[in-house]
Parts: sequence; C-alpha cells; structure tokens
Amino acid sequence: MIRFIVIGHRAHTTGDFKLDDICGGAGRIDILCRCISSAFFLSHYIRKNSEIFLVLQNGDDAPKTIRLNGLEIKYLNPDERSTASLIRNALLKKIDSEEVKASPGIYISKMSFSDIMQKLSKECRFIYLRENGVDIRNYEFPENPCYILGDDMDLTTDEEAILSSYPYDRICLGPLSLHANHCITIVHNEMDRRVTK
Amino acid sequence: MIRFIVIGHRAHTTGDFKLDDICGGAGRIDILCRCISSAFFLSHYIRKNSEIFLVLQNGDDAPKTIRLNGLEIKYLNPDERSTASLIRNALLKKIDSEEVKASPGIYISKMSFSDIMQKLSKECRFIYLRENGVDIRNYEFPENPCYILGDDMDLTTDEEAILSSYPYDRICLGPLSLHANHCITIVHNEMDRRVTK
Repeated sequence: MIRFIVIGHRAHTTGDFKLDDICGGAGRIDILCRCISSAFFLSHYIRKNSEIFLVLQNGDDAPKTIRLNGLEIKYLNPDERSTASLIRNALLKKIDSEEVKASPGIYISKMSFSDIMQKLSKECRFIYLRENGVDIRNYEFPENPCYILGDDMDLTTDEEAILSSYPYDRICLGPLSLHANHCITIVHNEMDRRVTK
Repeated sequence: MIRFIVIGHRAHTTGDFKLDDICGGAGRIDILCRCISSAFFLSHYIRKNSEIFLVLQNGDDAPKTIRLNGLEIKYLNPDERSTASLIRNALLKKIDSEEVKASPGIYISKMSFSDIMQKLSKECRFIYLRENGVDIRNYEFPENPCYILGDDMDLTTDEEAILSSYPYDRICLGPLSLHANHCITIVHNEMDRRVTK
C-alpha cells in the first residue's frame, strides 16, 4: 500500500461550507480534493494500492482525519466539486472515539496528525518531501511508503517535531517547489516505473 | 516557450454553462481546468514560459480556441471553479476572424485544431504523448516543444491525420496511462530537471 498524509492546516472540520466556496469558506479544501485526484486516478482505473489521510485542523471539533482507501472507494470522480461533496458528507457524520465509515472507502475519525503517525509507524516508512532531500530517482523505495505533505503551507515546527520522533527519509522531486497534488502525481509516476521494471 | 494543445472533444463553446456543472453541462471543461493548473502552477510562482491552447469542439459555433499565456496571465487560481469562470468569460466574448483578448493573458479565437497546428508548425516541434512512444527520460527536448493531448478521449483518426501531416515525435511518460493534467505535470518535471542540470 502506498500512503499519503496531507495536512490541511486551515481546512474546516464542520462540514457546513458551500460547494461553491471550497477554496475560501472551507479553508482550502480544494487542495485536498486535488490531492485525492492525484492519489487515485489513472486514465481508466483507480489506483487500488493507494490510501490517503487528510488531516483537517481548523474548527471547534478539530482535528478530524478523513481516510480514503483505493481498494474500497466508490463514487469518486476526478473533479474538485464532487470530491468536496464526498468530504463534506464525511464531515457531517457523527463520530466518537472510533473511526466511522462515511461512504464506500471513505472513513472519518477524530485522529490528529500525531495519532495517525503513531498508528502507521508500525508498518510504514515515513517519507518527507522537501527541496533538500535525496532525489526520488536515486531513492530505494520501502515496501510500505507513507509520504507526508502540507497543503499550501509547510509543516509547522510542531508537526516536524512529531515527524522527527520517528525514523523517516527526506526526498525531493526536482529542482522546483511544487503543489502537493503535483508532488503526488510525480511520486506515483516514479513508483510505477520501478514496479514494472 | 513550452506549449500544450489540449483538445476538448465535448467541451461547449457557448459559455452558457453553470459553474456548478462544468463536468456535465459544460462537456468536461473540468479536465481543461486541471490542465491549465498543471501547465502554470508552481508552489509560489506561475510558469511564465508556458502556454496552453484549449480547443473546444462542441457547440453551434465550434470550434473555438482559448489560449493562455504564462507571461501575461493574471487572476488565475489553481482551483477548477475559478478557472472555469475565466474560460466562460472568454467564451462569452464576441469574436470574428481575429483573436480577441478576454482578460490578461487569456485569448479566444475561432481557430480549429488544424489552424493551430499550421500556425505553430513554423516555430514548434510537435510531441504526441502516447503509450508506445520513446521514454521521455531518453528524449532530447527541442527548443520549442508543443505537446498534443486529448481530454478524456484520445485524438480521433482525423485529428491524428492532421498531426501526421507535420513532423512530430512520439513520447511516453511511464508504464501506465494517465489523465491529461497528470501528463502535463510529469512533462514539466522532466523539463525542469534538464534545464537546471
């Protein structure tokens, strides 16, 4: 399984935003939608071996984490509006301490970035995408990679401290700094090339 | 200048679609919006050396071509809805035989795919993205590349015949077939790596 954790620093957890206003009122949920699209879509298929965790950090009941699993997911289209609708639907679910299924392949919980890291640390190797990392083309991929990305903001000092409490690798994708969804596309492309060699 | 031509086979030319319905009523203009985003956006900058031609082929007054130029463009955001609004604004302009400026860096004309190819053939090398092409990583980029892509549909036999009437190269990006916007992201990444070497 190839995993991505994307931190939505300003993303609203309440689900009361309008689908016409996912950039502003929803706190840049448009970015998270594009990350979902890059994580899952091939030309004619869904990447079943992909999973993405979106950590929404803005709201009275923040944080919330939405998990999308490629093996189970249904009703996913590549456009932002319909994806935002799936996210909003998940955010409107009542949740307590356990993760809740919102729709096929989409789950919501009260997990924080720290909680997810702890949970995944048993089986994943964390990979942080940074300009000063090892070139992805020279990187030997672990069996269960988990890539950590910010939305349009870098990880905060506190988030980097959480990451640093686990073993992780630091890789870069090229000479220029890219949007999170573009990073996911390039990561997948490099891994596609290795698998089929 | 790095150029992209994307053919919107079902994309409506009339500009009477709703921004809530860019996938359905507008004829998959969502795909064109994502291509624009991939063509221009870096993390903190616009790619000024990028230009994209969108050929909209569905409507009573089809075809229409919208040209976006990175050096001049303003008011562009990475989300689909606001980009669709810029496209719709261009489609609502009255045009005759000449290209018309719709907003800074965005132009509209009645050019067909064939017209654009003829116009660009003097200065560009055409590049067709296909699964059976030369691997992009082994490809020696020309000075003025122009990449040809379909939306969610391949080029028709007629469109391929137009392309074939000019010299062109055929390249592939990896072992899997990808969405058009993901292709643009990967093309840019490869070219970024060459320029800075």
